[in-house]
Amino acid sequence: MQDCIFCKIVKKELPAFIFYEDEFVIGFLDINPLTEGHTLVVPKAHYESIFDIDEEALQKIISVSQKISKRIKEALRVEGVNLINASGVVAGQSVPHFHFHIIPRKAGDEINLASWWRSKVKEVDKEKLKELAEKLKT
Amino acid sequence: MQDCIFCKIVKKELPAFIFYEDEFVIGFLDINPLTEGHTLVVPKAHYESIFDIDEEALQKIISVSQKISKRIKEALRVEGVNLINASGVVAGQSVPHFHFHIIPRKAGDEINLASWWRSKVKEVDKEKLKELAEKLKT
Repeated sequence: MQDCIFCKIVKKELPAFIFYEDEFVIGFLDINPLTEGHTLVVPKAHYESIFDIDEEALQKIISVSQKISKRIKEALRVEGVNLINASGVVAGQSVPHFHFHIIPRKAGDEINLASWWRSKVKEVDKEKLKELAEKLKT
Repeated sequence: MQDCIFCKIVKKELPAFIFYEDEFVIGFLDINPLTEGHTLVVPKAHYESIFDIDEEALQKIISVSQKISKRIKEALRVEGVNLINASGVVAGQSVPHFHFHIIPRKAGDEINLASWWRSKVKEVDKEKLKELAEKLKT
């Protein structure tokens, strides 16, 4: 897609620190990392989000994300990773081309995802959850 | 796996607000939600994290996560979702059974994931990124 920076990276019209590439997917370093080795996994074809991406493309991306996670764990000697996708501007998506973030995690990395999370948790009534589950059944 | 709360939910030995179930995967409401409709997508078989999960099981989970995301968008009239996986205690994983969180997002939901993110971004030297990409090439 014209004017999409990830499409331009895929076509090598913009530079990027690509370290994984196959027929369908690329993996490259985020230039604004949360931690060392923060990676973006991106389909070569343009899809916007989880809502419109082709199921097979999505499966390829998650498989590559697993391969890269294992590689990161081994090469950077980290103890964990977070995989994060934002679908929709309201979810914090800044580039409208589907991508997974892989964020390598180490003890003491000061990312504090867990403490942010705990501060945002809401108390919910069980009756409300029951109703909600009914609503979500297809 | 004995003593795994998600295995017990899969086997219906513990209650949960399950609204999706197929041969391999269940989807149920997080009882400590970040937002309304916060869902956990869990494989029926026990895998700990992205590092040990079977590739085919992972692909099934991401496909179900997409289906549920679409369903949530439609049923709860949200504008986006975040998909999050924590692999490893250091990454904030609290239940050692692989799972994706689907967090429905709306304008003004006060989750502030994007502002937390921005506050954690690091400045990185391009030379360092180049070296890192070389290191991660398999």
